[in-house]
Amino acid sequence: MPKQPERPVRQRADARRNYERILAVAEEEVAAHGADASLEKIARTVGVGSATVRRHFPTRRALLEAVAQERIAGLSARAHELTAHDDSRAALLEWMGGVVEYCVCARGLAAALSYDFAETDPVHENSCAADLEAAAAPLLERAVRDGAVAPEVTTADLIALAVGIALATAGHPDPVARANRLFQLAVAGISPQS
Amino acid sequence: MPKQPERPVRQRADARRNYERILAVAEEEVAAHGADASLEKIARTVGVGSATVRRHFPTRRALLEAVAQERIAGLSARAHELTAHDDSRAALLEWMGGVVEYCVCARGLAAALSYDFAETDPVHENSCAADLEAAAAPLLERAVRDGAVAPEVTTADLIALAVGIALATAGHPDPVARANRLFQLAVAGISPQS
Repeated sequence: MPKQPERPVRQRADARRNYERILAVAEEEVAAHGADASLEKIARTVGVGSATVRRHFPTRRALLEAVAQERIAGLSARAHELTAHDDSRAALLEWMGGVVEYCVCARGLAAALSYDFAETDPVHENSCAADLEAAAAPLLERAVRDGAVAPEVTTADLIALAVGIALATAGHPDPVARANRLFQLAVAGISPQS
Repeated sequence: MPKQPERPVRQRADARRNYERILAVAEEEVAAHGADASLEKIARTVGVGSATVRRHFPTRRALLEAVAQERIAGLSARAHELTAHDDSRAALLEWMGGVVEYCVCARGLAAALSYDFAETDPVHENSCAADLEAAAAPLLERAVRDGAVAPEVTTADLIALAVGIALATAGHPDPVARANRLFQLAVAGISPQS
Protein backbone atom coordinates (compact mmCIF):
# COMPACT_ATOMS: atom_id res chain seq x y z
CA MET A 1 0.00 0.00 0.00
CA PRO A 2 2.46 2.67 -1.11
CA LYS A 3 -0.17 5.38 -1.47
CA GLN A 4 -1.37 5.49 2.15
CA PRO A 5 1.19 7.98 3.53
CA GLU A 6 0.26 10.44 0.76
CA ARG A 7 -3.35 10.72 1.78
CA PRO A 8 -3.11 13.04 4.80
CA VAL A 9 -0.66 15.17 2.82
CA ARG A 10 -3.09 15.47 -0.09
CA GLN A 11 -5.96 16.14 2.34
CA ARG A 12 -4.01 18.91 4.00
CA ALA A 13 -3.13 20.38 0.60
CA ASP A 14 -6.82 20.22 -0.44
CA ALA A 15 -7.87 21.88 2.81
CA ARG A 16 -5.33 24.66 2.35
CA ARG A 17 -6.48 25.21 -1.25
CA ASN A 18 -10.11 25.32 -0.08
CA TYR A 19 -9.21 27.77 2.67
CA GLU A 20 -7.47 30.06 0.18
CA ARG A 21 -10.28 29.82 -2.40
CA ILE A 22 -12.94 30.49 0.25
CA LEU A 23 -11.01 33.52 1.47
CA ALA A 24 -10.51 34.86 -2.09
CA VAL A 25 -14.22 34.47 -2.94
CA ALA A 26 -15.22 35.91 0.46
CA GLU A 27 -13.07 38.96 -0.25
CA GLU A 28 -14.94 39.59 -3.53
CA GLU A 29 -18.33 39.00 -1.88
CA VAL A 30 -17.53 41.40 0.97
CA ALA A 31 -16.28 44.02 -1.51
CA ALA A 32 -19.58 43.73 -3.42
CA HIS A 33 -22.06 43.30 -0.55
CA GLY A 34 -20.25 44.37 2.64
CA ALA A 35 -22.19 43.28 5.70
CA ASP A 36 -24.61 41.27 3.55
CA ALA A 37 -22.02 38.83 2.12
CA SER A 38 -23.67 35.40 2.08
CA LEU A 39 -21.77 32.34 3.37
CA GLU A 40 -24.01 30.11 1.23
CA LYS A 41 -23.20 32.05 -1.94
CA ILE A 42 -19.48 31.93 -1.11
CA ALA A 43 -19.70 28.13 -0.72
CA ARG A 44 -21.59 27.79 -4.06
CA THR A 45 -19.06 29.98 -5.92
CA VAL A 46 -16.09 28.03 -4.52
CA GLY A 47 -17.91 24.76 -5.34
CA VAL A 48 -17.88 23.36 -1.81
CA GLY A 49 -20.62 22.70 0.74
CA SER A 50 -21.57 25.18 3.48
CA ALA A 51 -20.17 22.65 5.99
CA THR A 52 -16.70 23.00 4.42
CA VAL A 53 -16.89 26.80 4.74
CA ARG A 54 -17.97 26.45 8.37
CA ARG A 55 -15.14 23.99 9.10
CA HIS A 56 -12.64 26.72 8.14
CA PHE A 57 -14.65 29.67 9.48
CA PRO A 58 -16.98 28.59 12.32
CA THR A 59 -18.73 31.98 12.41
CA ARG A 60 -19.51 34.74 9.96
CA ARG A 61 -17.38 37.03 12.12
CA ALA A 62 -14.36 34.70 11.85
CA LEU A 63 -14.66 34.80 8.05
CA LEU A 64 -14.98 38.60 7.94
CA GLU A 65 -12.03 39.08 10.30
CA ALA A 66 -9.93 36.79 8.11
CA VAL A 67 -10.92 38.87 5.06
CA ALA A 68 -9.90 42.10 6.82
CA GLN A 69 -6.56 40.64 7.97
CA GLU A 70 -5.89 39.33 4.46
CA ARG A 71 -6.54 42.77 2.92
CA ILE A 72 -4.27 44.54 5.44
CA ALA A 73 -1.52 41.94 4.97
CA GLY A 74 -1.85 42.34 1.18
CA LEU A 75 -1.61 46.14 1.44
CA SER A 76 1.44 45.89 3.71
CA ALA A 77 3.17 43.50 1.27
CA ARG A 78 2.29 45.80 -1.66
CA ALA A 79 3.74 48.82 0.20
CA HIS A 80 6.99 46.87 0.64
CA GLU A 81 7.12 46.02 -3.10
CA LEU A 82 6.36 49.60 -4.09
CA THR A 83 9.32 51.02 -2.15
CA ALA A 84 11.43 49.62 -5.04
CA HIS A 85 9.41 51.62 -7.62
CA ASP A 86 11.45 54.29 -9.42
CA ASP A 87 8.76 56.97 -9.10
CA SER A 88 8.15 57.55 -5.38
CA ARG A 89 5.12 59.75 -6.04
CA ALA A 90 3.43 57.16 -8.31
CA ALA A 91 4.27 54.44 -5.75
CA LEU A 92 2.66 56.33 -2.86
CA LEU A 93 -0.44 57.27 -4.88
CA GLU A 94 -0.94 53.76 -6.26
CA TRP A 95 -0.72 52.36 -2.76
CA MET A 96 -3.07 55.01 -1.33
CA GLY A 97 -5.61 54.14 -4.06
CA GLY A 98 -5.58 50.58 -2.75
CA VAL A 99 -6.05 51.85 0.82
CA VAL A 100 -9.06 53.98 -0.19
CA GLU A 101 -10.60 50.94 -1.89
CA TYR A 102 -9.89 48.82 1.19
CA CYS A 103 -11.49 51.45 3.44
CA VAL A 104 -14.65 51.51 1.26
CA CYS A 105 -14.76 47.73 1.65
CA ALA A 106 -13.85 47.92 5.36
CA ARG A 107 -16.87 50.17 5.97
CA GLY A 108 -19.00 47.12 5.11
CA LEU A 109 -16.69 44.86 7.12
CA ALA A 110 -16.95 47.12 10.15
CA ALA A 111 -20.75 47.08 9.97
CA ALA A 112 -20.67 43.31 9.70
CA LEU A 113 -18.37 43.10 12.70
CA SER A 114 -20.93 45.18 14.63
CA TYR A 115 -18.85 48.14 15.55
CA ASP A 116 -19.10 51.62 14.17
CA PHE A 117 -16.03 52.45 12.14
CA ALA A 118 -16.68 56.17 12.63
CA GLU A 119 -17.15 55.97 16.40
CA THR A 120 -13.72 54.53 17.15
CA ASP A 121 -10.78 56.82 16.50
CA PRO A 122 -9.83 55.27 13.18
CA VAL A 123 -6.37 56.75 13.33
CA HIS A 124 -5.12 56.13 16.84
CA GLU A 125 -7.20 53.39 18.46
CA ASN A 126 -7.70 51.06 15.55
CA SER A 127 -5.02 48.43 15.03
CA CYS A 128 -5.93 48.13 11.32
CA ALA A 129 -5.20 51.84 10.91
CA ALA A 130 -1.95 51.45 12.87
CA ASP A 131 -0.86 48.61 10.57
CA LEU A 132 -1.66 50.73 7.52
CA GLU A 133 0.23 53.73 8.92
CA ALA A 134 3.29 51.54 9.53
CA ALA A 135 3.10 50.21 5.97
CA ALA A 136 2.73 53.77 4.57
CA ALA A 137 5.78 55.17 6.39
CA PRO A 138 8.58 54.13 3.94
CA LEU A 139 6.49 55.19 0.91
CA LEU A 140 5.69 58.59 2.42
CA GLU A 141 9.31 59.15 3.50
CA ARG A 142 10.58 58.54 -0.05
CA ALA A 143 7.89 60.79 -1.59
CA VAL A 144 8.73 63.59 0.88
CA ARG A 145 12.47 63.17 0.18
CA ASP A 146 11.74 63.52 -3.56
CA GLY A 147 9.70 66.70 -2.94
CA ALA A 148 6.41 65.15 -4.13
CA VAL A 149 4.69 65.56 -0.73
CA ALA A 150 5.08 68.37 1.83
CA PRO A 151 7.26 67.34 4.82
CA GLU A 152 4.54 68.10 7.39
CA VAL A 153 2.21 65.41 6.00
CA THR A 154 2.03 62.36 8.30
CA THR A 155 0.96 58.77 7.65
CA ALA A 156 -1.91 59.42 10.11
CA ASP A 157 -3.09 62.28 7.84
CA LEU A 158 -3.07 60.00 4.79
CA ILE A 159 -4.96 57.14 6.46
CA ALA A 160 -7.48 59.52 8.10
CA LEU A 161 -8.19 61.10 4.71
CA ALA A 162 -8.69 57.66 3.13
CA VAL A 163 -11.01 56.63 5.98
CA GLY A 164 -13.00 59.89 5.72
CA ILE A 165 -13.43 59.56 1.97
CA ALA A 166 -14.63 55.98 2.41
CA LEU A 167 -17.12 57.02 5.12
CA ALA A 168 -18.48 59.95 3.07
CA THR A 169 -19.15 57.71 0.06
CA ALA A 170 -20.67 54.75 1.91
CA GLY A 171 -24.22 55.58 0.76
CA HIS A 172 -23.29 56.20 -2.89
CA PRO A 173 -24.52 53.74 -5.56
CA ASP A 174 -20.89 53.23 -6.73
CA PRO A 175 -18.85 53.95 -3.60
CA VAL A 176 -15.47 52.83 -5.00
CA ALA A 177 -15.72 55.11 -8.07
CA ARG A 178 -16.99 58.00 -5.94
CA ALA A 179 -14.20 57.47 -3.37
CA ASN A 180 -11.56 57.36 -6.11
CA ARG A 181 -12.83 60.67 -7.49
CA LEU A 182 -12.66 62.36 -4.06
CA PHE A 183 -9.21 60.85 -3.49
CA GLN A 184 -7.96 62.29 -6.81
CA LEU A 185 -9.33 65.67 -5.71
CA ALA A 186 -7.39 65.44 -2.42
CA VAL A 187 -4.22 64.41 -4.31
CA ALA A 188 -4.44 67.31 -6.77
CA GLY A 189 -5.74 69.71 -4.10
CA ILE A 190 -8.97 71.72 -4.14
CA SER A 191 -6.90 74.85 -4.76
CA PRO A 192 -3.18 73.97 -4.63
CA GLN A 193 -1.34 77.24 -5.26
CA SER A 194 -1.60 79.88 -2.53
CA MET B 1 -53.18 102.71 33.07
CA PRO B 2 -51.02 103.84 30.18
CA LYS B 3 -48.58 100.93 30.52
CA GLN B 4 -50.99 98.05 29.91
CA PRO B 5 -50.83 97.95 26.10
CA GLU B 6 -47.04 97.74 26.29
CA ARG B 7 -47.02 94.58 28.32
CA PRO B 8 -47.72 91.97 25.62
CA VAL B 9 -45.27 93.78 23.33
CA ARG B 10 -42.56 93.62 25.98
CA GLN B 11 -43.43 89.99 26.74
CA ARG B 12 -43.14 89.09 23.06
CA ALA B 13 -39.82 90.96 22.85
CA ASP B 14 -38.58 89.13 25.98
CA ALA B 15 -39.71 85.79 24.55
CA ARG B 16 -37.94 86.47 21.26
CA ARG B 17 -34.76 87.49 23.09
CA ASN B 18 -34.96 84.34 25.22
CA TYR B 19 -35.48 82.22 22.13
CA GLU B 20 -32.43 83.73 20.45
CA ARG B 21 -30.26 83.43 23.57
CA ILE B 22 -31.30 79.82 24.14
CA LEU B 23 -30.50 79.00 20.52
CA ALA B 24 -27.09 80.73 20.70
CA VAL B 25 -26.14 78.92 23.92
CA ALA B 26 -27.52 75.63 22.55
CA GLU B 27 -25.32 76.02 19.48
CA GLU B 28 -22.20 76.35 21.68
CA GLU B 29 -23.26 73.42 23.86
CA VAL B 30 -23.88 71.19 20.84
CA ALA B 31 -20.54 72.21 19.33
CA ALA B 32 -18.81 71.24 22.58
CA HIS B 33 -20.78 68.14 23.59
CA GLY B 34 -22.68 67.00 20.48
CA ALA B 35 -25.33 64.45 21.38
CA ASP B 36 -24.76 65.01 25.10
CA ALA B 37 -25.73 68.72 25.17
CA SER B 38 -27.72 69.26 28.38
CA LEU B 39 -30.97 71.23 28.33
CA GLU B 40 -30.51 72.01 32.02
CA LYS B 41 -27.04 73.45 31.46
CA ILE B 42 -28.34 75.53 28.55
CA ALA B 43 -31.09 76.95 30.77
CA ARG B 44 -28.58 77.76 33.57
CA THR B 45 -26.16 79.47 31.16
CA VAL B 46 -28.96 81.59 29.64
CA GLY B 47 -30.24 82.36 33.14
CA VAL B 48 -33.76 81.03 32.64
CA GLY B 49 -35.62 78.04 34.04
CA SER B 50 -35.82 74.67 32.28
CA ALA B 51 -39.54 75.34 31.79
CA THR B 52 -38.72 78.41 29.68
CA VAL B 53 -36.40 76.33 27.47
CA ARG B 54 -39.11 73.69 27.13
CA ARG B 55 -41.74 76.31 26.24
CA HIS B 56 -39.64 77.29 23.19
CA PHE B 57 -38.32 73.79 22.42
CA PRO B 58 -40.74 71.12 23.71
CA THR B 59 -38.30 68.28 22.97
CA ARG B 60 -34.55 67.84 22.84
CA ARG B 61 -34.97 66.95 19.16
CA ALA B 62 -36.77 70.24 18.43
CA LEU B 63 -33.88 72.16 19.97
CA LEU B 64 -31.23 70.22 18.05
CA GLU B 65 -33.11 70.63 14.77
CA ALA B 66 -33.35 74.37 15.39
CA VAL B 67 -29.58 74.48 16.01
CA ALA B 68 -28.90 72.61 12.75
CA GLN B 69 -31.23 74.89 10.75
CA GLU B 70 -29.63 77.95 12.31
CA ARG B 71 -26.13 76.79 11.35
CA ILE B 72 -27.16 75.99 7.76
CA ALA B 73 -28.97 79.33 7.42
CA GLY B 74 -25.89 81.10 8.82
CA LEU B 75 -23.59 79.32 6.35
CA SER B 76 -25.90 80.17 3.44
CA ALA B 77 -25.98 83.84 4.45
CA ARG B 78 -22.18 83.85 4.84
CA ALA B 79 -21.77 82.34 1.34
CA HIS B 80 -23.91 85.14 -0.05
CA GLU B 81 -21.77 87.78 1.72
CA LEU B 82 -18.52 86.17 0.57
CA THR B 83 -19.47 86.35 -3.12
CA ALA B 84 -18.64 90.07 -2.78
CA HIS B 85 -15.11 89.26 -1.51
CA ASP B 86 -12.33 90.39 -3.91
CA ASP B 87 -10.34 87.16 -3.60
CA SER B 88 -12.59 84.35 -4.86
CA ARG B 89 -10.15 81.65 -3.68
CA ALA B 90 -9.97 83.05 -0.13
CA ALA B 91 -13.76 83.43 -0.09
CA LEU B 92 -14.36 79.79 -1.08
CA LEU B 93 -11.77 78.46 1.38
CA GLU B 94 -13.01 80.56 4.28
CA TRP B 95 -16.55 79.36 3.65
CA MET B 96 -15.46 75.73 3.30
CA GLY B 97 -13.63 76.01 6.64
CA GLY B 98 -16.97 76.97 8.21
CA VAL B 99 -18.64 74.01 6.51
CA VAL B 100 -16.02 71.57 7.84
CA GLU B 101 -16.55 72.96 11.34
CA TYR B 102 -20.33 72.67 10.92
CA CYS B 103 -19.97 69.05 9.73
CA VAL B 104 -17.85 68.17 12.80
CA CYS B 105 -20.64 69.66 14.91
CA ALA B 106 -23.36 68.02 12.78
CA ARG B 107 -21.82 64.59 13.43
CA GLY B 108 -22.90 65.10 17.05
CA LEU B 109 -26.22 66.57 15.96
CA ALA B 110 -26.90 63.61 13.70
CA ALA B 111 -26.20 61.18 16.53
CA ALA B 112 -28.52 63.17 18.78
CA LEU B 113 -31.23 63.12 16.14
CA SER B 114 -30.86 59.31 16.07
CA TYR B 115 -29.86 58.75 12.52
CA ASP B 116 -26.49 57.69 11.24
CA PHE B 117 -24.93 60.51 9.25
CA ALA B 118 -22.70 58.02 7.42
CA GLU B 119 -25.50 55.64 6.48
CA THR B 120 -27.55 58.16 4.54
CA ASP B 121 -26.01 59.42 1.33
CA PRO B 122 -24.77 62.70 2.74
CA VAL B 123 -24.44 64.26 -0.68
CA HIS B 124 -27.62 63.38 -2.52
CA GLU B 125 -30.30 62.34 -0.05
CA ASN B 126 -29.65 64.79 2.73
CA SER B 127 -31.44 68.13 2.49
CA CYS B 128 -28.80 69.80 4.71
CA ALA B 129 -26.14 68.77 2.17
CA ALA B 130 -28.35 70.00 -0.68
CA ASP B 131 -28.74 73.40 1.02
CA LEU B 132 -24.97 73.63 1.49
CA GLU B 133 -24.31 72.65 -2.13
CA ALA B 134 -26.69 75.37 -3.33
CA ALA B 135 -24.93 77.92 -1.11
CA ALA B 136 -21.50 76.78 -2.38
CA ALA B 137 -22.38 77.11 -6.09
CA PRO B 138 -21.72 80.87 -6.63
CA LEU B 139 -18.47 80.73 -4.59
CA LEU B 140 -17.19 77.72 -6.54
CA GLU B 141 -18.18 79.24 -9.91
CA ARG B 142 -16.20 82.41 -9.16
CA ALA B 143 -13.15 80.45 -7.95
CA VAL B 144 -13.22 78.25 -11.08
CA ARG B 145 -13.57 81.34 -13.32
CA ASP B 146 -10.50 82.84 -11.60
CA GLY B 147 -8.52 79.61 -12.18
CA ALA B 148 -8.16 78.85 -8.45
CA VAL B 149 -10.10 75.56 -8.69
CA ALA B 150 -10.16 73.01 -11.53
CA PRO B 151 -13.38 73.23 -13.62
CA GLU B 152 -14.33 69.57 -13.03
CA VAL B 153 -14.72 70.10 -9.26
CA THR B 154 -18.40 70.10 -8.21
CA THR B 155 -20.14 71.46 -5.12
CA ALA B 156 -21.05 67.83 -4.31
CA ASP B 157 -17.31 66.99 -4.27
CA LEU B 158 -16.60 69.84 -1.84
CA ILE B 159 -19.40 68.97 0.57
CA ALA B 160 -18.63 65.22 0.44
CA LEU B 161 -15.00 65.96 1.28
CA ALA B 162 -16.04 68.17 4.22
CA VAL B 163 -18.45 65.46 5.46
CA GLY B 164 -15.78 62.75 5.11
CA ILE B 165 -13.18 64.77 7.00
CA ALA B 166 -15.70 65.41 9.79
CA LEU B 167 -16.59 61.71 10.02
CA ALA B 168 -12.94 60.59 10.06
CA THR B 169 -12.12 62.94 12.95
CA ALA B 170 -15.21 62.25 15.10
CA GLY B 171 -13.26 60.16 17.63
CA HIS B 172 -10.33 62.58 17.92
CA PRO B 173 -9.81 64.48 21.22
CA ASP B 174 -9.87 67.82 19.31
CA PRO B 175 -12.02 67.02 16.26
CA VAL B 176 -12.26 70.61 14.94
CA ALA B 177 -8.47 71.12 14.93
CA ARG B 178 -7.90 67.69 13.40
CA ALA B 179 -10.58 68.32 10.74
CA ASN B 180 -9.06 71.71 9.89
CA ARG B 181 -5.65 70.10 9.41
CA LEU B 182 -7.05 67.44 7.05
CA PHE B 183 -9.02 70.12 5.18
CA GLN B 184 -5.84 72.18 4.66
CA LEU B 185 -4.18 69.03 3.31
CA ALA B 186 -7.05 68.54 0.82
CA VAL B 187 -6.85 72.23 -0.21
CA ALA B 188 -3.08 72.10 -0.82
CA GLY B 189 -3.23 68.57 -2.24
CA ILE B 190 -1.36 65.49 -1.01
CA SER B 191 0.83 65.76 -4.10
CA PRO B 192 -0.43 68.57 -6.34
CA GLN B 193 1.86 68.60 -9.39
CA SER B 194 1.68 65.56 -11.68
